[in-house]
Amino acid sequence: MSYTIGIDIGGTNTDLGIVDESGRIVARRRLPTNRYTEPGPYVRDMMQEVNGLMHDISATTVEGIGIGAPNANYYTGYIDNAPNLTIKGRLNLAEEIQRYMAVPVALSNDANAAAYGEYIYGGARGMQHFILFTLGTGVGSGIVIDGKLVHGGSGTAGELGHNILIPDGRLCSCGRKGCLEAYTSARGIVQTYQELRHEAGLSDVAISSKEIGDLARQGDNLALQCWERTGRLLGIAMANAVTFSAPQAIFLMGGPTQVGEPLLRPLRQSFEEHLLHIYAGHCVVLMSQLPANDVAILGAAALVKMKP
Amino acid sequence: MSYTIGIDIGGTNTDLGIVDESGRIVARRRLPTNRYTEPGPYVRDMMQEVNGLMHDISATTVEGIGIGAPNANYYTGYIDNAPNLTIKGRLNLAEEIQRYMAVPVALSNDANAAAYGEYIYGGARGMQHFILFTLGTGVGSGIVIDGKLVHGGSGTAGELGHNILIPDGRLCSCGRKGCLEAYTSARGIVQTYQELRHEAGLSDVAISSKEIGDLARQGDNLALQCWERTGRLLGIAMANAVTFSAPQAIFLMGGPTQVGEPLLRPLRQSFEEHLLHIYAGHCVVLMSQLPANDVAILGAAALVKMKP
Repeated sequence: MSYTIGIDIGGTNTDLGIVDESGRIVARRRLPTNRYTEPGPYVRDMMQEVNGLMHDISATTVEGIGIGAPNANYYTGYIDNAPNLTIKGRLNLAEEIQRYMAVPVALSNDANAAAYGEYIYGGARGMQHFILFTLGTGVGSGIVIDGKLVHGGSGTAGELGHNILIPDGRLCSCGRKGCLEAYTSARGIVQTYQELRHEAGLSDVAISSKEIGDLARQGDNLALQCWERTGRLLGIAMANAVTFSAPQAIFLMGGPTQVGEPLLRPLRQSFEEHLLHIYAGHCVVLMSQLPANDVAILGAAALVKMKP
Repeated sequence: MSYTIGIDIGGTNTDLGIVDESGRIVARRRLPTNRYTEPGPYVRDMMQEVNGLMHDISATTVEGIGIGAPNANYYTGYIDNAPNLTIKGRLNLAEEIQRYMAVPVALSNDANAAAYGEYIYGGARGMQHFILFTLGTGVGSGIVIDGKLVHGGSGTAGELGHNILIPDGRLCSCGRKGCLEAYTSARGIVQTYQELRHEAGLSDVAISSKEIGDLARQGDNLALQCWERTGRLLGIAMANAVTFSAPQAIFLMGGPTQVGEPLLRPLRQSFEEHLLHIYAGHCVVLMSQLPANDVAILGAAALVKMKP
């Protein structure tokens, strides 16, 4: 049996897992990322956990180590100035890891990794062209063309959350206006809900996107309208993405998508309405088939499988 | 010396050229496409012209034949139901040609071909990641990633002219609303000019995008505003395209771009204003370096050079 290591680096924790050929995470470990300020001790302890994982299942070798992290660069193997990390400056991760273990190391950002996880272990198996959108604090995306992740010239391709959907629209966390993320991230969804309350003559209320999902499932009219607006915009963004790479499918994942039909029904309707006719019938919108708790590790591990 | 054949199939004429390694078209011929209704005689006469071209320069072999045409499919070698052709139904061009000459045949749509021409013979030489926008009757695009044209799942990728830029905006020729093409094609530019006239209390006038260019160069205020609006929207569309593939450059070609600075100045300003900060300094907007009269043949010939 051949194994790969998947490592998901978040600001709070680093989650590590060892994955078998079938895509099962056979052992997991966790390291508190925010306890480190220097690369040296962080990589040393990370590799101690990697050895621990191999020991847990009596594996003597692994095929490689894949890492998903915000700001991770596939070409250089660096994580540069990630704003959410306590380790500052440049983390030359690929090279540092290879001092401990002579295996291939592949890095990419977390959304790209999730897309590749879908390709190797999830619903995109066998597809050569697809795009994944992941909704959460932000809106991330990963693009696969000819079975390879698109990294582009600078290694930072696939930021469809920052496609400008409404010129001069809502202020986005990136400082520009009208990005998809400003409308369809967890925060964007809450903002839409508050706007609908204002339109109905109501004042703001403290609420999360998950709670707006609960309200929608109970049939609350404002909450249903909120998901309707969100789905409509996401459908336009997805139809626009199709004009780029003519994918076979667009996958969707992330917390806010768990509301289900209140989002998916208007999304699919808007997607079909806004899809250029030559693509009709050639591209479907699908939910991710990876378990939410496994996506980060499976995605990272999948990076090891990418063709050069 | 090695030669390639480039064939540009238009509704009125089919332009053929033989191209040397340096990108010089050393001989040209023309066939009236609209005289044919059946594939057989059309391909026979086309191949007679190909033989004529080889005879013109005393070439005994060619590296391959590249063809640019609306609706041409790279994967299948077909041209299917092109609305502008008098030859109806399916034109199985790759196979038909190979009955006459045992050489590689590569087809793609005209905008994709133009992009690949820029890569092999023009300003994109040495770049692995770039996008080309071509303005004219429509707005076409071609996307190159890792030195290869993006054709996608169905062979019809790269239709950025039909990215929806203004949801519920202007009616586009495709039947949807708010596409880039509705604003920045030759017709879209004229429509913007008429809108500006209405805003100024003036009535419609019969005018072409070329004449609006002439007026702008003479300092006409309404014409300058028209190019300003056009450039602003094109800059947003280009900044959006960067979030997809993080290209090193975006190239621009086509009739309306010949107006120069009245379009390019606001375009570059808008592009920089709307570019996500992580891409700042990594992508430049450039004019095509291929002569307007040679683009179609050079682009078609370049398709022969694409890596499998």
